[in-house]
Amino acid sequence: MKRLTILSTTALLSISLVGGAFAAGMKPEQQIETRQAGYKFMAWNMHKIKANLSGNFKQQQVQKAADAIAGIANSGMGALYGPGTDKAVNGVETRVKPELFTNKKEAGKVARDFIDAANNLAEVAAMGDEAEVKQAFGALGESCKACHKQFRQDD
Amino acid sequence: MKRLTILSTTALLSISLVGGAFAAGMKPEQQIETRQAGYKFMAWNMHKIKANLSGNFKQQQVQKAADAIAGIANSGMGALYGPGTDKAVNGVETRVKPELFTNKKEAGKVARDFIDAANNLAEVAAMGDEAEVKQAFGALGESCKACHKQFRQDD
Repeated sequence: MKRLTILSTTALLSISLVGGAFAAGMKPEQQIETRQAGYKFMAWNMHKIKANLSGNFKQQQVQKAADAIAGIANSGMGALYGPGTDKAVNGVETRVKPELFTNKKEAGKVARDFIDAANNLAEVAAMGDEAEVKQAFGALGESCKACHKQFRQDD
Repeated sequence: MKRLTILSTTALLSISLVGGAFAAGMKPEQQIETRQAGYKFMAWNMHKIKANLSGNFKQQQVQKAADAIAGIANSGMGALYGPGTDKAVNGVETRVKPELFTNKKEAGKVARDFIDAANNLAEVAAMGDEAEVKQAFGALGESCKACHKQFRQDD
């Protein structure tokens, strides 16, 4: 738990330092499409966990879904919010609010909270207690909503 | 290594048994979009690792990228190849060949090889030896190509 927490709280710093390299050569529209791909794939895995918590709980399925979410969450998505990605570009839409690019302190906080919650869910899922998974899953959902509320349009 | 290998070789069986549940309620076009999101996000992480191997090797970046790829690879993407996803549907295109849906034995083999290669890269990346990462990354790329060659149009 401790190692993961340390990693996750430094992740955003890493992003800001090496963001350029992570998104090297990518056009703004490619960055938007790639971050949206990450969110879409995480959403699918969130739905799978939700279905497991609403029905027959299959620990291995839940663990795999949680690992996918944590893997994506930790991959440095901040690099995909480069210059020119704050609004629609070349036909690629985005729902991001401009505030994400100006309020970097708050953006960093919600991102760290999200990464921490994703890592916690992955750890709890590996242990396999359904009640703990339910709690960790709820916390992850809250961290998603916290960001959407502040930084996504129509939320 | 052994635990991961055992997990990965059973992953496809899990997919075939629970595929319906994994893609429950998803329209064919949503399944196609979700699997494409997974490949797009993996491709971004492949590019990051390639850039690290071509320049300044940053172990932590490589490990995070490899973990994201392995997390997605293990998440049961086979469920996203449900009925009606073998061709364009409701404006969502796909490059998949019909053979993927008829030659299940070969499709299962290339998928298992891909998952094994992704897990191996994640393990090697965690250890941090650049030469080993290069070899494991090359093997993963070959596993991607093997599937594209057989089951993707224009390849």
